[in-house]
Amino acid sequence: MSKGFLVVISGPSGCGKGTICKELLKQNDNLIFSVSATTRKPRIGEVDGKNYFFIDDKKFDDMVKNGEFLEHAYVHSNRYGTPKKFVLDNIERGKIVLLEIDVQGALQVKRVYPEGVFIFLLPPSMEELKNRIVKRGTETKEDIDLRLKNALEELKFVDEYDYLVINDKVDNAVKKIEAIISAEQLKVKRHKDILKKINIQEG
Amino acid sequence: MSKGFLVVISGPSGCGKGTICKELLKQNDNLIFSVSATTRKPRIGEVDGKNYFFIDDKKFDDMVKNGEFLEHAYVHSNRYGTPKKFVLDNIERGKIVLLEIDVQGALQVKRVYPEGVFIFLLPPSMEELKNRIVKRGTETKEDIDLRLKNALEELKFVDEYDYLVINDKVDNAVKKIEAIISAEQLKVKRHKDILKKINIQEG
Repeated sequence: MSKGFLVVISGPSGCGKGTICKELLKQNDNLIFSVSATTRKPRIGEVDGKNYFFIDDKKFDDMVKNGEFLEHAYVHSNRYGTPKKFVLDNIERGKIVLLEIDVQGALQVKRVYPEGVFIFLLPPSMEELKNRIVKRGTETKEDIDLRLKNALEELKFVDEYDYLVINDKVDNAVKKIEAIISAEQLKVKRHKDILKKINIQEG
Repeated sequence: MSKGFLVVISGPSGCGKGTICKELLKQNDNLIFSVSATTRKPRIGEVDGKNYFFIDDKKFDDMVKNGEFLEHAYVHSNRYGTPKKFVLDNIERGKIVLLEIDVQGALQVKRVYPEGVFIFLLPPSMEELKNRIVKRGTETKEDIDLRLKNALEELKFVDEYDYLVINDKVDNAVKKIEAIISAEQLKVKRHKDILKKINIQEG
């Protein structure tokens, strides 16, 4: 069996990465979602090891110290990280692991795991990005301005990624990412076992 | 408009590259077939500039000398070559140029134009490859043995390629190559114009 690989879906806040990942997982059995570790308390209905790995600060510190995260960050005074072991174990089992993450996180992952497939998801325009952020209705004017400013900054890092997908419609973006995954599965570097596979019997 | 790119479909004799290319061209308007130059005489119905560029030995020599071929070779005492200009002009116009070629030719192309997308097409097994060659019915026992021996030799060059597609069924192989082409179109390196595209208006 061939090894799997890591697919990082990333992009500015409001680009729609959450929706795209949900659709991808719904439609593709060979994908598995990368479960994050966090120090925040579980909300009602959240299951340890499924929604998150819920751990305390001491454990989080140890994991950071031992290099057990692909990336980690503070968000609203809680800590979040991507456990390396979960990702690598699933890749070893032939799974394609999907990691949904912001641009800062993706750049961290790339530094320690450049073998991943890095996809930058873009809104069709900055106007549309603004609409999407405003529509959430949960943000103040200052928050919206900050998010747009960050999005512009984050666009500068698109060169660090392998693929660029414009999220004009969810279905289109999902199909494009499925094509990327299919193509990546066909890369020669993922089939070092091929000479065996085709039953070569010399002589 | 983004630039196009070159897709090289290659593999051992009997892997089915001719059939696959025909299907790809039939189903995809954005593809254009790379027209070879040859010193052999046109057969009835063959059109200059469509089936081949029919040229004489003197012209062929000049083109070789001036580095105007991506690759060239002798086949049955005629000469064949892939004119660089045809390929590069079409890429500049945003076209995806399809080049069907044997393994030796593909390796030549890669040396002068590594920016191409190199796809190695494989029969599902050596047994099946033999069946396909035998079925043509045009080959002697010695020809068949030679082709199989060559196929085994050529497999050793699969590492020089980007993608590996097993041609178990024409439809499957065509879909896989279409996915590769879709993914390649989404590569960040092909979209250096992206910051303009999304209409960034700072400040």
